[in-house]
Amino acid sequence: MAILIDSVSKNLIPWLMAFKSYDDQEEIYCFDDGVDLKKITTAVVWNHRSGLFKLLPNLKLIASLGAGVDHIMNDPDIPTDALITRVVGEGLSGPMSNFCIGAILHHQRQFDKYLIDKSNKIWDQEPNPEKGMNVGIMGMGALGTDLAQKLIYLGFKVFGLSKSRKKISNVVSYLDSELDVFLGKINILVVMLPATESTRGILSKKLFDKLNKGTYLINVARGHHQVNEDIIDAIEENQLSGAFLDVFPEEPLLKQSPLWNHPKIMITPHIAVVTKINEAVPQIIESHRKVIAGESPEILVDRIKGY
Amino acid sequence: MAILIDSVSKNLIPWLMAFKSYDDQEEIYCFDDGVDLKKITTAVVWNHRSGLFKLLPNLKLIASLGAGVDHIMNDPDIPTDALITRVVGEGLSGPMSNFCIGAILHHQRQFDKYLIDKSNKIWDQEPNPEKGMNVGIMGMGALGTDLAQKLIYLGFKVFGLSKSRKKISNVVSYLDSELDVFLGKINILVVMLPATESTRGILSKKLFDKLNKGTYLINVARGHHQVNEDIIDAIEENQLSGAFLDVFPEEPLLKQSPLWNHPKIMITPHIAVVTKINEAVPQIIESHRKVIAGESPEILVDRIKGY
Repeated sequence: MAILIDSVSKNLIPWLMAFKSYDDQEEIYCFDDGVDLKKITTAVVWNHRSGLFKLLPNLKLIASLGAGVDHIMNDPDIPTDALITRVVGEGLSGPMSNFCIGAILHHQRQFDKYLIDKSNKIWDQEPNPEKGMNVGIMGMGALGTDLAQKLIYLGFKVFGLSKSRKKISNVVSYLDSELDVFLGKINILVVMLPATESTRGILSKKLFDKLNKGTYLINVARGHHQVNEDIIDAIEENQLSGAFLDVFPEEPLLKQSPLWNHPKIMITPHIAVVTKINEAVPQIIESHRKVIAGESPEILVDRIKGY
Repeated sequence: MAILIDSVSKNLIPWLMAFKSYDDQEEIYCFDDGVDLKKITTAVVWNHRSGLFKLLPNLKLIASLGAGVDHIMNDPDIPTDALITRVVGEGLSGPMSNFCIGAILHHQRQFDKYLIDKSNKIWDQEPNPEKGMNVGIMGMGALGTDLAQKLIYLGFKVFGLSKSRKKISNVVSYLDSELDVFLGKINILVVMLPATESTRGILSKKLFDKLNKGTYLINVARGHHQVNEDIIDAIEENQLSGAFLDVFPEEPLLKQSPLWNHPKIMITPHIAVVTKINEAVPQIIESHRKVIAGESPEILVDRIKGY
C-alpha cells in the first residue's frame, strides 16, 4: 500500500516534502530508499528509470507528475491491469492559456516583426499592425477548451479540432476527419494534442501545405508532433509566417539546431506550463486512496487513446 | 455647415472616401480644395496645420480622428466656444487591451528573457517561468477599464489608479492621491494616462523609485509622459526589470536613441491602437449633426481636464 516516486529528470526533493507535509499517514519512498518493492501499489513518475514497472509486482496505479502521460505510455512494461492517472486543474490551464495568448499576440500584434525592426532601428508603422485573428486549436481537452473560451473573450474567432464534437459558446468545432476544412479557416494554429502514435510527426510538410499561406504555428504540446526541418522549409517558402515553439523532439534543444538562429522562430525551453506541486499532490494522494479502496481515480487515462 | 478634414501626418484619402461613402449629404473638404472657410463648422483633425483654427471663424466642433486630443489641446488657438470630441469604442479598446495583454505576457511569461537566451543558444528552465501577476493600470478610462476586466478574466490581480474611485468587479481602485500605495502593490505598470500638463514627464526617477524593485513598465499612452534617460537608468539599477514602449517623446524614435539597442527595452512604433476608419466616421458625422442641431456630442472632451 506504499507509494514510490521516481524520475530521472526532475528534482524530487520538493515533491517528497510536499507529499509528507500534505499527508504523513501514507508511506512514500524513493527508489534508493531500499524499500521492499512488493509494498509499492502506486508509482508516481515523470521520465522514470527504465525497467521500473517490472520491479513492482503489486503496482495498481501509475500517476504522472504532470498533465502529459507519453513518458508512461512509451514504456512497454506497463502492467496490463494498472490504472493510469495524470494531473489536471486551474494550476495547469491558467498558465497554459496565458502562455498561448502571449504567443498568439506576439504574432497577431506583430511583436515578431517589431523585434526584427528594432534590431535594425527601423520605425515602420505599415502595414496594418494587426494580423488575422482566426485561431485554430488542435486538441480540445481541458486545456484547449480553457484557451478557446479566453480567446473568444478577447475578440478572436476560434476553431477547435477534436475527436468528438464540442459545444463551446462561439467556438466552431471540427472533427479530426474534417482536418482539411479546419486548416483552411485559420491563420494561427495552436497545437495542444497529446503525444500518441497517430500524432507523431503530424506537424510536417503534408499538414503545412493545407494551411493558408502565412499561417503562424504555435506548439505547446510535445516535440513528438514536430518535424523541425519541415517547419524551417515552410517558413522559407512563406507557407508558415513563423513559429513559436515550446517543445522539441529532442530536449534540451541541441546547440547545433538551426532553429536557434532563425529570426522567425521563437524558442522557449518547455516552460509553457510547469506542474504546481501543491495542486498535484492532493490529486495524486486522492487517486492512490481511491485505488486502494477499489474505486477508480477521478481522472483516468484511456490506454487505447493514449491520453 | 461644412466639414473640413486636416492632418499633416495622416493619409486623408481613405478617410475622405469613408466619409463620402457613409454620407453623401454632408459637405466635406480638404484644406486645398479652395472651400470658403467661413462655411466650415466642424474641423476633423489629427496633427492639423499650424494656425488652422484662426482661419475658421464659424468653427463649432473640433473632432479628433482618434482617441487622443493632445494634438488639439496643444493648439493655443482653439476658439473659446468650440466643442471638442474624440473617437471611442470597441474598435479602440479591443486592440488596445490585446496589445497590453501581449506586452504584459511578454514579460510575465519571460519571453523577454527567452529572447536573450535564444540569441545565446541557452536552454534555461530556471527560475520559475512565471513572474508576478499584479498589474497596475494608471488611467482608468474606457480603455483602462476594458483592459482591467480582461486581465481579471485571465487570472491577474489588477489595481487601478484614477481621479475618481471606480467600481469594477475584483479591481482594487486607488485615487491619484494614493499613488504611492498603488505603486507599492504592483510588479507590472501599464500607463494609459491622457497627455495633460500634470502628466508631462511623470514616468521619471521620482516615480520609479516608489515602485517595487524589478517592476516592468509598459507605456501605450503618450511619449509626453516619459523621461527616456530615467527609464534606462532605472533598468541599469534593476529598479525596473525592463520596459515595453509604444510611444516616445519624439516620434519616429531617433536613430541615435540608446533605447533601440537596449536588450531589456521592447520598442513598437506607436501602433498599440490604430483608429478604425469605419468606426470613427459614423461617430464624427453624428457629433457634427448634433452640434448643428444645437445639441452636445455624445463624447465631449473636458477642456479643463484636457481629455
